[in-house]
Amino acid sequence: MKDLTILGATGSIGSNTLKVIDANPDTFNIKYLTAGSNAEKLAAQAKKYKPTAIAIANKQKLNYLQTELSDKKIDIYGGRDGILEIAGRDDVDLVVNSIVGPPGMEPTYKVVNAGVDIALSNKESLVMAGSVIMKQAEQKGLKIYPIDSEHNAIWQCLRGEDLREVAEIILTASGGPFRTLSYQELKGVTPEQALDHPTWNMGRKITIDSATMMNKGFEIIEAHWLFNMPANKIDVVVHPQSIIHSMVEFCDGSIKAQLGLPDMKLPIQYALFYPQHREVRWENTNLAKIRKLTFEEPDYRKFTCLKLAQQAVKEEGTASAILNVANDKAVYAFLNGNIKFTEIPVFVEKALDNIKILSDPEFGDILETQRQTEEFIDNELNKRK
Amino acid sequence: MKDLTILGATGSIGSNTLKVIDANPDTFNIKYLTAGSNAEKLAAQAKKYKPTAIAIANKQKLNYLQTELSDKKIDIYGGRDGILEIAGRDDVDLVVNSIVGPPGMEPTYKVVNAGVDIALSNKESLVMAGSVIMKQAEQKGLKIYPIDSEHNAIWQCLRGEDLREVAEIILTASGGPFRTLSYQELKGVTPEQALDHPTWNMGRKITIDSATMMNKGFEIIEAHWLFNMPANKIDVVVHPQSIIHSMVEFCDGSIKAQLGLPDMKLPIQYALFYPQHREVRWENTNLAKIRKLTFEEPDYRKFTCLKLAQQAVKEEGTASAILNVANDKAVYAFLNGNIKFTEIPVFVEKALDNIKILSDPEFGDILETQRQTEEFIDNELNKRK
Repeated sequence: MKDLTILGATGSIGSNTLKVIDANPDTFNIKYLTAGSNAEKLAAQAKKYKPTAIAIANKQKLNYLQTELSDKKIDIYGGRDGILEIAGRDDVDLVVNSIVGPPGMEPTYKVVNAGVDIALSNKESLVMAGSVIMKQAEQKGLKIYPIDSEHNAIWQCLRGEDLREVAEIILTASGGPFRTLSYQELKGVTPEQALDHPTWNMGRKITIDSATMMNKGFEIIEAHWLFNMPANKIDVVVHPQSIIHSMVEFCDGSIKAQLGLPDMKLPIQYALFYPQHREVRWENTNLAKIRKLTFEEPDYRKFTCLKLAQQAVKEEGTASAILNVANDKAVYAFLNGNIKFTEIPVFVEKALDNIKILSDPEFGDILETQRQTEEFIDNELNKRK
Repeated sequence: MKDLTILGATGSIGSNTLKVIDANPDTFNIKYLTAGSNAEKLAAQAKKYKPTAIAIANKQKLNYLQTELSDKKIDIYGGRDGILEIAGRDDVDLVVNSIVGPPGMEPTYKVVNAGVDIALSNKESLVMAGSVIMKQAEQKGLKIYPIDSEHNAIWQCLRGEDLREVAEIILTASGGPFRTLSYQELKGVTPEQALDHPTWNMGRKITIDSATMMNKGFEIIEAHWLFNMPANKIDVVVHPQSIIHSMVEFCDGSIKAQLGLPDMKLPIQYALFYPQHREVRWENTNLAKIRKLTFEEPDYRKFTCLKLAQQAVKEEGTASAILNVANDKAVYAFLNGNIKFTEIPVFVEKALDNIKILSDPEFGDILETQRQTEEFIDNELNKRK
């Protein structure tokens, strides 16, 4: 039995991780769990898995947990410090970081500093702090396993291969709900329309990122760090059915693809048990029933977020941190009805043009860039009022 | 520089092998070449590559070669014995066996007995004598690399993987020129129609095998031997574009596929230089330009050859040798206008029902089964006259 921490245990990836572990009994002991604010679900998980300690980011929920678990020998932490305390524990074999959004970045940094292997679902960790985290991971000789279906697919395709023989990583993109809209039509898109994603069922913020294709832009940045690939060796192809999860083209022109029905439990299981394919199957993919897979070039003029991400990964340093934070603020401004859908990349571009990009940043530089970017976007949004 | 033998050097795979070697200079020294009857092309190859010895199966062409190459220090052999003499030479690092049809089987047996690694394109070797050849290869600890695009794809997908974790091998099939015809329409098919293959440009016999889908049946048998897979773990999906060359599904439901434009030079190069992906690219595959990949179940009622092959691989022993030889004779009877297209599987099934199947055969048993099957089909054909 290996000891496991799940950061963000009550979210979609965290819950699916526990389902995978339930289906593979006697493999992992759940030692630590954290959640953002869903205290009810965290309490239920704590009762079932009996971890050594848990933490909840929302301090107001601490009392509830203490009462609910008063008869259990479980240490309970509250607030951001509590999450970081758990993330920094080195008495586990693997940490799953499935925290959604920017709050997941610093916990990854803590895990890597503690020298523990990490199965990573949180996008912001590598998008914002890729250089810092990968450098630290390399120094400590630890592994970062991608849970994200695209990067997990690439990782599977690279199995047994030599990274130096890779010609190109080809990320597949569903194209989001607005793939077929014109730029004029995009301008009038409402949050409700944007939240209606064709294939994957995800959170609100990520669904908007899928609609702007910034999500795919982030994945370009993550692939850059995870597989040490320059930006010009990472391509995107739109594949609306999301059956091929991504591909790798080798220098001889041979292409390998990993495919299957969209279900996050497969990549989670692959990351938890690598290098073993466990004989627990979540989906049966029948291509003859699926009948048709289609592909098209992404429209870079319409989905400018993709272009901005490519630009940020080329600039390196803190550029992609600016990209990420500015996008985050802009997406919530759109969801709150304060800006148009097509203005999201406009705000992001302004931030990239105006905030100083630091090369080879330390972790503190990234936090400072985050602060500056938030302030910058807030000011820009205030000008509108 | 490694020393190489090419058996069947003047055919399609043989010629492409030489193109691959031309594109990768200073990697292989062409030591031996053989051909069936194309003496002009073999002479030209001998002049260019200066092998130690060559052989031509058609003895009548021996004089021509001796005259043409009189000023070269090249040993020249003629007849079937000459081919086997060259095949049995163990002073090379690798043999490519690209002889088409049943005459390619015994040379493979010779190569394996000589203890030399082999890149195998000849289908009959494993279809007719898979048990004997694989047993011998295992005893000698030598490698059999598949050149065939489907098996090469599977081999690529299995790279870095554990065979015990394979749930299923999924062979893709173009479906041949008659994929969309009804059984009634199939009955009236002419040799000319059958020779018009949609994607791959191949020889006459193989093209008919593609039209009956017996070709895919043979590939099931080859996959069975190459990857030690039981028949029930080998599936076929029709994929008319022939872009996905084949797939492997693992026990966790993850599927890996190898894909690219149809060009035999890629699998040849992969087999010659394994485990290296050489930086020589034959095709640029752009899925966005291809736009669409489609899949459907094979119609086993219409393509009964596929069913017969599955039956033969389950019966093991000499069953697939009978299948192969009977099919060979029946296909030529169809090409000569003596039987209908839909009668090909009828003759094959008769042979399987009437000729004694030997389990765990020796090589001599296979030759005897070949003789019996030829005699049986000849008699059956004579009854028609």
